[in-house]
Amino acid sequence: MEQSQLVNLVEQMTLEEKIGQLTQITGDFYSDKAEERTGPMSQLGLNDDQIMNVGTVLGVVGASECKRIQKNYMEHNRLHIPTLFMGDVIHGYETIFPIPLGLASSWDTEAFRRMAEVSAEEASVSGLSVVFSPMVDLVRDPRWGRVMESTGEDPYLNGRLASAMVKGYQGEPGDLSTQFNKVAACVKHFAAYGAATGGRDYNTVDMSEQRLRDVYLRGYEAAIEAGARLVMTSFNSIGGVPATGNLHLMQDILRSEFGFDGVLISDFGAVKELIAHGVAEDETQAADLSIHAGVDIEMMTLCYMHTLVGLISSGTVSESIVDESVLRILELKNELGLFEHPFRGADEDREKTVVFSAEHREIARRTAAESIVMLRNDDSLLPLDAERSIAVLGPGAQSPDVLGAWSWRGRTDAAVTLLQGLQELAADGEDEGRRPSVVTTQERCDYFVPTKSVVSESIELAKQSDVVVLALGELSTMSGEASSRSNIRLPKGQVELFEAIHEVNPHIVVVLFNGRPLDLHDIDGAEAILEAWYPGTEGGAAIADVLFGAVNPSAKITMSFPESVGQIPIYYDEDNTGRPYEVAPNEKYVSKYLDVSNYAAFPFGFGLSFSHFTYDSLVSSSNSFSATEPVTVSVNVTNDSNVDGTEIVQLYIRDLVGEVVRPVKQLKGFKRVALAAGESRRIEFSLTEEDVRYVHLDCTMRSDPGDFLVSVGGNSRDLLDPLHLHLD
Amino acid sequence: MEQSQLVNLVEQMTLEEKIGQLTQITGDFYSDKAEERTGPMSQLGLNDDQIMNVGTVLGVVGASECKRIQKNYMEHNRLHIPTLFMGDVIHGYETIFPIPLGLASSWDTEAFRRMAEVSAEEASVSGLSVVFSPMVDLVRDPRWGRVMESTGEDPYLNGRLASAMVKGYQGEPGDLSTQFNKVAACVKHFAAYGAATGGRDYNTVDMSEQRLRDVYLRGYEAAIEAGARLVMTSFNSIGGVPATGNLHLMQDILRSEFGFDGVLISDFGAVKELIAHGVAEDETQAADLSIHAGVDIEMMTLCYMHTLVGLISSGTVSESIVDESVLRILELKNELGLFEHPFRGADEDREKTVVFSAEHREIARRTAAESIVMLRNDDSLLPLDAERSIAVLGPGAQSPDVLGAWSWRGRTDAAVTLLQGLQELAADGEDEGRRPSVVTTQERCDYFVPTKSVVSESIELAKQSDVVVLALGELSTMSGEASSRSNIRLPKGQVELFEAIHEVNPHIVVVLFNGRPLDLHDIDGAEAILEAWYPGTEGGAAIADVLFGAVNPSAKITMSFPESVGQIPIYYDEDNTGRPYEVAPNEKYVSKYLDVSNYAAFPFGFGLSFSHFTYDSLVSSSNSFSATEPVTVSVNVTNDSNVDGTEIVQLYIRDLVGEVVRPVKQLKGFKRVALAAGESRRIEFSLTEEDVRYVHLDCTMRSDPGDFLVSVGGNSRDLLDPLHLHLD
Repeated sequence: MEQSQLVNLVEQMTLEEKIGQLTQITGDFYSDKAEERTGPMSQLGLNDDQIMNVGTVLGVVGASECKRIQKNYMEHNRLHIPTLFMGDVIHGYETIFPIPLGLASSWDTEAFRRMAEVSAEEASVSGLSVVFSPMVDLVRDPRWGRVMESTGEDPYLNGRLASAMVKGYQGEPGDLSTQFNKVAACVKHFAAYGAATGGRDYNTVDMSEQRLRDVYLRGYEAAIEAGARLVMTSFNSIGGVPATGNLHLMQDILRSEFGFDGVLISDFGAVKELIAHGVAEDETQAADLSIHAGVDIEMMTLCYMHTLVGLISSGTVSESIVDESVLRILELKNELGLFEHPFRGADEDREKTVVFSAEHREIARRTAAESIVMLRNDDSLLPLDAERSIAVLGPGAQSPDVLGAWSWRGRTDAAVTLLQGLQELAADGEDEGRRPSVVTTQERCDYFVPTKSVVSESIELAKQSDVVVLALGELSTMSGEASSRSNIRLPKGQVELFEAIHEVNPHIVVVLFNGRPLDLHDIDGAEAILEAWYPGTEGGAAIADVLFGAVNPSAKITMSFPESVGQIPIYYDEDNTGRPYEVAPNEKYVSKYLDVSNYAAFPFGFGLSFSHFTYDSLVSSSNSFSATEPVTVSVNVTNDSNVDGTEIVQLYIRDLVGEVVRPVKQLKGFKRVALAAGESRRIEFSLTEEDVRYVHLDCTMRSDPGDFLVSVGGNSRDLLDPLHLHLD
Repeated sequence: MEQSQLVNLVEQMTLEEKIGQLTQITGDFYSDKAEERTGPMSQLGLNDDQIMNVGTVLGVVGASECKRIQKNYMEHNRLHIPTLFMGDVIHGYETIFPIPLGLASSWDTEAFRRMAEVSAEEASVSGLSVVFSPMVDLVRDPRWGRVMESTGEDPYLNGRLASAMVKGYQGEPGDLSTQFNKVAACVKHFAAYGAATGGRDYNTVDMSEQRLRDVYLRGYEAAIEAGARLVMTSFNSIGGVPATGNLHLMQDILRSEFGFDGVLISDFGAVKELIAHGVAEDETQAADLSIHAGVDIEMMTLCYMHTLVGLISSGTVSESIVDESVLRILELKNELGLFEHPFRGADEDREKTVVFSAEHREIARRTAAESIVMLRNDDSLLPLDAERSIAVLGPGAQSPDVLGAWSWRGRTDAAVTLLQGLQELAADGEDEGRRPSVVTTQERCDYFVPTKSVVSESIELAKQSDVVVLALGELSTMSGEASSRSNIRLPKGQVELFEAIHEVNPHIVVVLFNGRPLDLHDIDGAEAILEAWYPGTEGGAAIADVLFGAVNPSAKITMSFPESVGQIPIYYDEDNTGRPYEVAPNEKYVSKYLDVSNYAAFPFGFGLSFSHFTYDSLVSSSNSFSATEPVTVSVNVTNDSNVDGTEIVQLYIRDLVGEVVRPVKQLKGFKRVALAAGESRRIEFSLTEEDVRYVHLDCTMRSDPGDFLVSVGGNSRDLLDPLHLHLD
């Protein structure tokens, strides 16, 4: 449809029809089973006519149902405007990939793009045209349940990964209109939702505008620059005003500065929550604040439907604001090709072959293996000798709870457990004469209170085996939305199980399933630790790949693992202080704790490999760089082991003097480098003036001429002696 | 001296002399023992001539030494300008009062005024004319070591107490010039030092300007309004810029908006620390930033002395800025009467009788008893029956470490230990036929690793006694400056001691010595808990007064005690969220943790009494109030017990709708009310339009017409059903 036709359509619409477009409800309102409809409909007070004006739908499952709803909707909608199906596709649709915090550990933009492509394939063929991803909320507090959904603590990395996801979902510019296996991306949650006070979900966020822009907004901006067609508001207040009613945030920053011209949608119920927040007296004021902030779509509450007519007739809201929002929504529908192809990608036949295909599962398996972080490997316990006897124990051993939160379409029934992964590998091994014997308990072990019998059975098996693979962690319901924890240690019952087993067999590989950085000091005695996150559909298989060395681990954590909850917030790029710890950690009057170091147990960027990598010969092409002349920084990386492997090489800078206090370190580049055993290679990074820009007190992003330290290493802590470079 | 003479004096001064006035060094530079001088002097690179231009001196001890230094100084200073002695007098000079966080628990503005008066008496007769108090840094993180020095988490209470302290130190306007037993107060640390990230001292502070003004600045403003003659900069950065070089904070807010015309002094070394912060390249830039921010005195570094001449000759700094600072310093000296009376209050003879006098100690004892918070008293274990046998055990039993941090002049040798307090009372009792028998261990118990023998001795004594008074807590070096803890539980050795004793005698009164709210779940089994803080010189006596009922406890904590460190930050006046916990704590999708409630173990304003108080009949004089018509809110408070007691009655409001998200509760009034056994009294509060003002998005402080909830109770959690009042 031409733009002029869209404008013309808006002109034809009644005010009620327009306001309907600004509202989103769930699919059950359109169910063909009366009992599924009447409950929600009476709750919200909607009737059959009204829902046929509602512009978009949330969370419908399957091509057939989407098509049925669309057909019925278009027949009843006076102007035959198609509805638009959106859904929470976060780390896969049915084929579930590792949780984003896990996948981020791969530092692999290609893997993110592929994950988004697969998700788009499955979601679009099942009828969805918009997915609520990427989530780019920068996080510094592992108590927050939604860290599992983020890509970690670094603005630069978050931006790179979000950008890759947007491209994976949406394809190239223009693809959405013609490639119906692509979906529109919705970047969320704007803004700074990840900075919830105390890590308590939905809690207040407060920070200076300088920090907001310099640290927290960069990821969203990268996603918007990559073309994300939608933005979702966050639940939190920021600077005293809830994001969903925050004029400054949405109009000054998002629309004017970032130039975002797509659709802004509220989070679930967030418009009406302005009342609970205490910035709106009633639905009228909530609608007034939100529409002026520029929220185009109100999700799952009806403040717009109930009050916009009155607000317009009283002159409080100009109808032109509503028209602009409606036009943006129609433009999105048009961009997705819905006017011509209201079913778009939905196809019941292709759905059967595309969704959860063997090909997609294979990609998920490779991606999962690439996301597993080896945190410890004393005495090279890993990879396991294929001929050893292995006891697979602990609550995660046989649990299908490997998908993680935000996998509503994921199939737990078809997920590969750790035990299955190991057994399959053991079976494969038989053909080649390699026969790991794998035993486990008869009874499944509970995550919180392992029974006496399962404990004694576990001890018995541990005694009889060469190695124990002990799968510990959190239930997937312990992270995700509304799942904050004040205590980030392993459940007590698991620690006791660990200790009991450790007494009889110290050769323990702990495999962790969890959605956040944990305080792991309770399992200090483990010889090896694999952080498997929630690895997704092919989880057990991917872990087995790593345990037996079919895949050499390369992942590196993107969020600091604290020594204890008392160190929170802990993040590698903290601001410099006037009494820096690093310079004199044993002095009294420096910024530190009496009882623990300032350092993370496992720092940002850390992860081990079966290979061993060394760094040397850090040099630069010049001692200075400028706005027109970038500098090339290069380093020699050597795999001085006899195992092929992949290293994530990381470039960090420090701006020595700024108008604003600068972080002690900042990631400004990274490369995944495959190095054969014994191979040495020169890795080059280009450092540009743009890389060292930051937000000044006047809120402008620019660089300062001056000196920078630049270094490279395998994690944020262990870096080569830095180069001194000057920005002219 | 007349103002014109001061101006004339500035005109006569050389630039070097002026810059000298802007510098502060410690007293050892003026020692008459060469070896005490040469070290520091060579470190800073100062010579004898230069120190005779330095305008102020830090931390000199005693009238005689002050007089000697002053005499010598004035002889050598070309224009015979007197120097000025300042010192860290925080909660007493030699007579030590409870740490401020303890004294705050009294909610007694009179007690604060008296404490400041006594401190001023002792400090001034010993030669000091300026004290670095009050500290009004609002705190929400018990990990921070300096919470001991603050008065807690509430802006309103902090302001009231700071104001009382300023009046105690300075007397009435004009007193400083004539009453030489008064000293000038220096409010610190401007600004928001208490919001150090992670509770780690000196760490970055970051918040919105709205929060800074609405919450954190109110205490400083109150102290300035009360007339504090000096302000000290804080170490931290705020909004990206270290306070000491923060033009916006110091010029726009402190000087222009607050109208502060007194002397702004840096904290120890804070000017030069701008280099470490990374906002200044060198001393020149550090001086440039600080002098433009308006820092009049540079404490203990010499950026001004080294670089201001150059900065002025290059035109970067105008000499008039320096002249203004010098004039402010001379005005302060003049206001203190130093030009006419360079020794001011210093008097070796009076010093002997004034300092640490019996009268002062008696005030300290009463104040300490008023600061002890009874957190638990199951089965009315307290007050102790005078005829019972008591074992006084634990590391605090015999420890003289009862003064707390920031008591450099305090006399540990003359401090009353808990054992001494109890023994004295036992001895007193004998005369009246009341004979508590008090036993303790031969060996003193360590705070961290009680020896096996002291543990077994303790168990033996506990067995033989009716009641155990078990004194636990922190060494005073575990709080205060540079003493942050990531773990706020009791040391493990103490918990084990508690458990061992509890097995043989459950009748345990835990007496706590500590400088911060602790996670006390390890001593859940205690029948009674007395939070004694660091009670000061007369600590043991005051605790004994409470234990035996000579004083009925009335104190209430002014900082929330968390259930665990994982709840931090926790404070009663948190901002409202869109998904409030209080409304539906058992719902999943509300702002909460999975594993702990949102509530403190002991909430702000909580404390028990031997009396029992009930509240009823909350009424208001009107349903509305206005800018011209305050409303009177009154409540009936009854002491329905047979013990006379004092209750701290607290008034809280909630602003239902604001432009900015409002706190769920805010303290707006309190009264200490003595009620005889059985007495009932109507307590009235006046609520004014000014009380409900808050900082809006445009940074103006004003109220919004609308609805408020108003309630009254004995702590921030247990309040009567609120009144609905309307601000017209």
